[in-house]
Amino acid sequence: MTKNYLYILLFPALLVNGSAFAQKKAKPDPLKAEVIKSVDTRFDVLTDLSDKIWAFEEIAFQETQSAAALADYAEQLGFKVTRGVAEIPTAFVAEYGSGSPIIGILGEFDALPGLSQNKVPTKSPLNDNAPGHGCGHNLFGVASLGAAAAIKDLIAEGKLKGTVRFYGTPAEEKFFGKLWMIRAGLFDDVDVVMDWHPAAETKAAVQKGLALVDFQVEFFGQAAHASADPWNGRSASDALELYTNGINYYREHIKPTVRIHYHIQDAGQVVNVVPDYSRIWVRVRDSSRDGLEPVWKQVEKMASGAAILANVDYKVSLISGIHEVLVNRTGSYALQKNLEALGPISYTEDEQVFSKKIQESTDKPQIGLVSIIEPMEETDEHSMGGSTDVGDVSYVVPTIRLSATTAPNGTPWHSWAVVAAGGMSIGHKGMGYAAKALSMTMVDLFQNPELVNQIKAEFKESKGDYVYKGIIPDGPPPIHSNLQ
Amino acid sequence: MTKNYLYILLFPALLVNGSAFAQKKAKPDPLKAEVIKSVDTRFDVLTDLSDKIWAFEEIAFQETQSAAALADYAEQLGFKVTRGVAEIPTAFVAEYGSGSPIIGILGEFDALPGLSQNKVPTKSPLNDNAPGHGCGHNLFGVASLGAAAAIKDLIAEGKLKGTVRFYGTPAEEKFFGKLWMIRAGLFDDVDVVMDWHPAAETKAAVQKGLALVDFQVEFFGQAAHASADPWNGRSASDALELYTNGINYYREHIKPTVRIHYHIQDAGQVVNVVPDYSRIWVRVRDSSRDGLEPVWKQVEKMASGAAILANVDYKVSLISGIHEVLVNRTGSYALQKNLEALGPISYTEDEQVFSKKIQESTDKPQIGLVSIIEPMEETDEHSMGGSTDVGDVSYVVPTIRLSATTAPNGTPWHSWAVVAAGGMSIGHKGMGYAAKALSMTMVDLFQNPELVNQIKAEFKESKGDYVYKGIIPDGPPPIHSNLQ
Amino acid sequence: MTKNYLYILLFPALLVNGSAFAQKKAKPDPLKAEVIKSVDTRFDVLTDLSDKIWAFEEIAFQETQSAAALADYAEQLGFKVTRGVAEIPTAFVAEYGSGSPIIGILGEFDALPGLSQNKVPTKSPLNDNAPGHGCGHNLFGVASLGAAAAIKDLIAEGKLKGTVRFYGTPAEEKFFGKLWMIRAGLFDDVDVVMDWHPAAETKAAVQKGLALVDFQVEFFGQAAHASADPWNGRSASDALELYTNGINYYREHIKPTVRIHYHIQDAGQVVNVVPDYSRIWVRVRDSSRDGLEPVWKQVEKMASGAAILANVDYKVSLISGIHEVLVNRTGSYALQKNLEALGPISYTEDEQVFSKKIQESTDKPQIGLVSIIEPMEETDEHSMGGSTDVGDVSYVVPTIRLSATTAPNGTPWHSWAVVAAGGMSIGHKGMGYAAKALSMTMVDLFQNPELVNQIKAEFKESKGDYVYKGIIPDGPPPIHSNLQ
Amino acid sequence: MTKNYLYILLFPALLVNGSAFAQKKAKPDPLKAEVIKSVDTRFDVLTDLSDKIWAFEEIAFQETQSAAALADYAEQLGFKVTRGVAEIPTAFVAEYGSGSPIIGILGEFDALPGLSQNKVPTKSPLNDNAPGHGCGHNLFGVASLGAAAAIKDLIAEGKLKGTVRFYGTPAEEKFFGKLWMIRAGLFDDVDVVMDWHPAAETKAAVQKGLALVDFQVEFFGQAAHASADPWNGRSASDALELYTNGINYYREHIKPTVRIHYHIQDAGQVVNVVPDYSRIWVRVRDSSRDGLEPVWKQVEKMASGAAILANVDYKVSLISGIHEVLVNRTGSYALQKNLEALGPISYTEDEQVFSKKIQESTDKPQIGLVSIIEPMEETDEHSMGGSTDVGDVSYVVPTIRLSATTAPNGTPWHSWAVVAAGGMSIGHKGMGYAAKALSMTMVDLFQNPELVNQIKAEFKESKGDYVYKGIIPDGPPPIHSNLQ
Repeated sequence: MTKNYLYILLFPALLVNGSAFAQKKAKPDPLKAEVIKSVDTRFDVLTDLSDKIWAFEEIAFQETQSAAALADYAEQLGFKVTRGVAEIPTAFVAEYGSGSPIIGILGEFDALPGLSQNKVPTKSPLNDNAPGHGCGHNLFGVASLGAAAAIKDLIAEGKLKGTVRFYGTPAEEKFFGKLWMIRAGLFDDVDVVMDWHPAAETKAAVQKGLALVDFQVEFFGQAAHASADPWNGRSASDALELYTNGINYYREHIKPTVRIHYHIQDAGQVVNVVPDYSRIWVRVRDSSRDGLEPVWKQVEKMASGAAILANVDYKVSLISGIHEVLVNRTGSYALQKNLEALGPISYTEDEQVFSKKIQESTDKPQIGLVSIIEPMEETDEHSMGGSTDVGDVSYVVPTIRLSATTAPNGTPWHSWAVVAAGGMSIGHKGMGYAAKALSMTMVDLFQNPELVNQIKAEFKESKGDYVYKGIIPDGPPPIHSNLQ
Repeated sequence: MTKNYLYILLFPALLVNGSAFAQKKAKPDPLKAEVIKSVDTRFDVLTDLSDKIWAFEEIAFQETQSAAALADYAEQLGFKVTRGVAEIPTAFVAEYGSGSPIIGILGEFDALPGLSQNKVPTKSPLNDNAPGHGCGHNLFGVASLGAAAAIKDLIAEGKLKGTVRFYGTPAEEKFFGKLWMIRAGLFDDVDVVMDWHPAAETKAAVQKGLALVDFQVEFFGQAAHASADPWNGRSASDALELYTNGINYYREHIKPTVRIHYHIQDAGQVVNVVPDYSRIWVRVRDSSRDGLEPVWKQVEKMASGAAILANVDYKVSLISGIHEVLVNRTGSYALQKNLEALGPISYTEDEQVFSKKIQESTDKPQIGLVSIIEPMEETDEHSMGGSTDVGDVSYVVPTIRLSATTAPNGTPWHSWAVVAAGGMSIGHKGMGYAAKALSMTMVDLFQNPELVNQIKAEFKESKGDYVYKGIIPDGPPPIHSNLQ
Repeated sequence: MTKNYLYILLFPALLVNGSAFAQKKAKPDPLKAEVIKSVDTRFDVLTDLSDKIWAFEEIAFQETQSAAALADYAEQLGFKVTRGVAEIPTAFVAEYGSGSPIIGILGEFDALPGLSQNKVPTKSPLNDNAPGHGCGHNLFGVASLGAAAAIKDLIAEGKLKGTVRFYGTPAEEKFFGKLWMIRAGLFDDVDVVMDWHPAAETKAAVQKGLALVDFQVEFFGQAAHASADPWNGRSASDALELYTNGINYYREHIKPTVRIHYHIQDAGQVVNVVPDYSRIWVRVRDSSRDGLEPVWKQVEKMASGAAILANVDYKVSLISGIHEVLVNRTGSYALQKNLEALGPISYTEDEQVFSKKIQESTDKPQIGLVSIIEPMEETDEHSMGGSTDVGDVSYVVPTIRLSATTAPNGTPWHSWAVVAAGGMSIGHKGMGYAAKALSMTMVDLFQNPELVNQIKAEFKESKGDYVYKGIIPDGPPPIHSNLQ
Repeated sequence: MTKNYLYILLFPALLVNGSAFAQKKAKPDPLKAEVIKSVDTRFDVLTDLSDKIWAFEEIAFQETQSAAALADYAEQLGFKVTRGVAEIPTAFVAEYGSGSPIIGILGEFDALPGLSQNKVPTKSPLNDNAPGHGCGHNLFGVASLGAAAAIKDLIAEGKLKGTVRFYGTPAEEKFFGKLWMIRAGLFDDVDVVMDWHPAAETKAAVQKGLALVDFQVEFFGQAAHASADPWNGRSASDALELYTNGINYYREHIKPTVRIHYHIQDAGQVVNVVPDYSRIWVRVRDSSRDGLEPVWKQVEKMASGAAILANVDYKVSLISGIHEVLVNRTGSYALQKNLEALGPISYTEDEQVFSKKIQESTDKPQIGLVSIIEPMEETDEHSMGGSTDVGDVSYVVPTIRLSATTAPNGTPWHSWAVVAAGGMSIGHKGMGYAAKALSMTMVDLFQNPELVNQIKAEFKESKGDYVYKGIIPDGPPPIHSNLQ
């Protein structure tokens, strides 16, 4: 797998002299003005759509209404829509135009369990225990589709040539739907893919995140009356507990970039029976797919050790796993130029008050919304934080990623606060901004074949001789697992 | 609390010469023939009622239909019924007659979660994940009411004097409803109480079972992203796991009569968050309430140790606890004589085939239904096995207990097999048999004041200076806890 | 292995009518008077010898001076002594006479580590961290040799015919020297064996004690700097700790008669290195060799589970194991008669004061020395408590066992208090008493072939078709292990 | 404590223009030539002294002969020697000259347990289980004294003015002797301190290492027979094991810069007794004294949690703790210039063969001795690796540190391989080289007051308002702890 991101050595011209596309940026591009206008025109419709998906609050692989709303709108706009791709009812592809280049854009729309929240700046569940859009995916899919629509307009008007393709990608929060979409070959013919993510800042996203793998361990023992004859029982809960003991001891012997976490899902049903079944969800992460491998294998193997200790049987089942992002700095730099051209989002006093209230409620510095376009960051060798299945896409096709502000600075992610901000004007503004930045950059990709070539060259170099293989089990995607 | 059951020294006459009541047994009692006939007459109605409750399959404190069916029938028979006693909607008292003696009889009717089963001799759920009568309580309440009805007939006809009182006692399987009925004073004026339990054999029940206490431990930590900043998290799951580690180490240092078991109820909700909440249900048992005390207190205290280890907060909440049974051998001996008079239950070839099939399915010796009335057992100093909230009643009023066969020999209790047998003729026969043996013994109690005095004398001696106090928290009974 | 000890059914005559030998007891036996006198005559010499061994305080397999002192004395008395038997330098056999019967008597003489103590009734080490005779074996070997000497006198005088054989049996406290003496065939030709043990009461010893097995588990990991690169280390200490976690979880699932305990011997040498080696001594006990087997095998197997969890290698090495005692009640009854004839030991006021002081120092009731000969106890199906390698002898040859008082009632065994009492007159009296009771019973055995036959018949019946096999590894005895 | 090492902003002149002293370097300094010659002249004596200390192999606080050898030689050279300073018999100060500046130099000489080794390139203990100089301290003290001697010569000749002071600092490997020397005020009047350390490379040492704290936790339970009545025991070993469980769970919640390790020192003495005593040595590290604090306090507090879980008492005793190094880059840069002037060490073919053999034996790349002077490294914000009590000196007085090659590249430190190389010519060469580089830099310090001022200015800036306080308990140093 890729060891060095040697873009600096490979593409010195980009940095020293500026490249062709960078020079173009100096002359304001009329097509970019058109896509900006196009997003503005549709802003109310997009906002509406986003609010609907916010209210649907559907979790991974259950996003029936959300996927339909997006697909219906794409169809209505004239896209050719293919629903239920990759054996996933809520996955779809919406395409417009024909021929090269083929530029893809990703749209997510799944919610997170337990985060339901009203559009107010203090914790206040809308529906008890219901899901909520704590990762802003109600905005994500809509903005991407808005960007695709703006490009579609230009293709329809003959101002751009090629194909724009919107990917409706479900289950990013759990299971990682893109893995099966890749397996189904849906990304095989694309030149470049773009995506964005709601965030608390606005920038070209050039960190790798973490690779991860999810697997499930089940233990199978022998039930017995916990008081009358516990010696006839073999406890699946004992095995699970000894397994987590083992995992916690193992923490001393993993590198600082590795993370292991688990969720005890079932350790017995009643107090007076030696449990004959237990189940735990285990996640292993590292800053690269390579580093992940030996830890993953050891944590899997440990299940057999725990089973021996508790004299029970066990089963390890791969759920799925994702790659860290293969960052494309050439593409990111093109995006960065468009961010600089757009400038930061501006906010009203009310939005700042709302934001400071959120910051107060979540014990963060009450500095409101911070709206600056910083110079593009370095890409850390070991960037930590979260993970995304866009990582896998980035190993299949060059991928350019944007972060756009949809919540106040410092907001804890995957929290009620993201739900609140994502359901009102702060989120809507970020969504519109993202649609503009993405479509402006797509204009570059459509207009500048050399840029696409440079992006591809970096991708090829970075990937090296690594042969991508998605971390998924054989068989259909686990589309019913969330119903258990 | 009572340390010696010195009935042998105290009541030598009972054993050597036989007592007044025992001598009466020799002369067949015409009233006993009447109660037997009375049960036979109502057998179809009782069977019907039992099958209804079997089908209601309602769990602890949720037994609305089951309690209503029993109470309605009692009312229809002429009993004076008081519903919703002791702040429990499904607890009731049905009384007939007036004045002394007051003889009580207990009737349980709650089912167990997850044991739903068809009336067939192999595992076959009727409703997936639904409860089932794995402890035979569909038969329990009905037989007791049938016995009470037979006595009522005699009182109504003026052949017996006094009061018969049926206690509809919910939630025996969990929470232990009788504790609150005792607290409400419902047993204060009774002379003797009888009960029975479905079993795989027929005998006077003279073992103590185990005292137990149930409490819940909750840990409260600090959530954090399990990958991005686990060092900002304090894990409630860690605390719970270290608590169970501690409990398992403690096992070396408890007496062989002690049992500790637990049910991990919640150790986090998602894999990528350091859990800020966890909950475990802990049960401690010993062969006596006295022995229970120090272990209970230590296991409670250990929660604070685990909380320190994981740097979290914790809360221990008493659920409830029960006493071992204060066995009354004088009363049991009276019952034993009636069992010997009745003789064993006889079974059809079909019932034996059904039973052997159950035994085959549960890996037990295929010996069918064993139907023998053995001599009364010794009462073990430390009898092991299960526990019952009848133990608490037995510390408040002298209690005579019967086991009657409702399932094949060797049937694992709290299993689908008990549900199956309890829903067909094997269970029905046991129910009828119990109703007869109980009402015959009640005839003894009504007719023989000296017997009642001897029973009370043994009770007083056995209890000694122990002052009964139910192990329940202040406040109302946890009638909604099963809905969580 | 033996399941039933049906001596009551088999030998009813012994209990109901009394047997031939029992009737003999009624007529005072002149030879018994002679052995009593013989012990009294040698009492000062025996006391001296006992005090020497007390002062040698030599632990298992290191008892060079103690063994030599006993063997030298036997030689001086005219016994034929064979030293260094069974590949053990401190094991020896001392024999006198010829032909049948051959009656053996066992003598132990090893001390316990860390129990050094002055002859005072409060804790006061004689030599810091030195061993001490906390099990009274300084008295054990000497009394047995005294008894053998008394019999030797009678053989020498032609009053008895046959062979008396003293076994100098080292390492009873650890390693269990008798196992290798049995393997060497040293017990093959004996008719009956006797032994005794210092105790806090005087009685025929008719409880089985516990079978046990000792084994060692070693884990082999990979060292690494604990700070610089712990991820390159695989910790043998982790494995050991996870192994003990597993053992403690297993405690829920063993029968009340089983015990598992362990001694962590090495879990690393310095704080800043991931340990590459660890070692633990594990002991498993049950009330029978049969019950031991599955638990032993599971605890052994668990080592492999812990090794997998910590990603290290492991090795399990059998140390040795012993059988529970195959009690011979026929022989015990003969001994009991002699105890009754001898009556209890009497003590001086000073000895009682000394004893009460010991009891005060060890938090025991200050009742002094209790000196009563109770009727012979029942043999419990599951007798708990300690273990002895006499158990193995008892499976090879019928064995009669005595407990004689050498310490105050309630004295915690294996403590400084036993050392103190065993070094002064209380211990000396018990030693003399034991020598008398043993030699009196040996007189019975030599004089009464029918008794020997009955003893052998019970032995045969009790043992059944069990084929004895000592629990020892191949190869020489571990005579140097205590020097590690 | 210091948060920023702003030397770059503070001393731009050093980097851009070069400083006064750096410019001087261009003109070969005649005094530097003299100190080089001085070291060469004494090389054989120094080598001899180093080999003696190598053979003494004395561990922390037991370095009687090693300290005496160094102090005697200093005395013989004309230094004024004060032995037994800071209540430590093996600590001493050797001083020459008078007045300002006072330049100190540190010399360590303690060995490590268990590393005894012959002077051969494969593992081969010289004395079984004996200590060995696995950290090269036989060379350390000698080279520093050699450097001091060279300066002494110049002072004696009137070529330099001021005081040179050699600190004989024992117990660096354990207990950290310098802490008590600082407490005794021995560093209060020094201007600058120098030291060096044997290593596998040659460079100015500009990384911070880790702060750490050592403490001991003892648990006190109640002994009981592990088989007869374990329920009367409260196990100190259980407490210790639950404590380590807790520590391992805690690892998830510490920052990547933190390390926690422990050494189980005593968890019971025999297998058949519930242990009433256990002891564990715990070490906590972080990249700064500040970061250490909360983790240290939590791990201490956890002892109380484990004690509650096992129902035992506990005691936490501080052993000692050290600060990370306050790097002085100004001083390091002066040293760097001298390294560049000296050039790398050259090795013979035999030395390379010896080195490659060591590398082969320790699974390292067989590249021999690497001898290059690289440009001075950046100082990492969080440098990991080991720790040194020089860290504490560096918080009291500006400290300049050197690493000099005494072992082949890649040699695992604290291993037999370091012992081997440190006892032959490879080690000797490094020792001589260090003496030269150190004395050359001391020449700079004596000759260039402005350099000393700049060094002090950086020190003051880096330290900020942090008030140094050594992490040691009250009372005398633990000079007898290693004899336990």
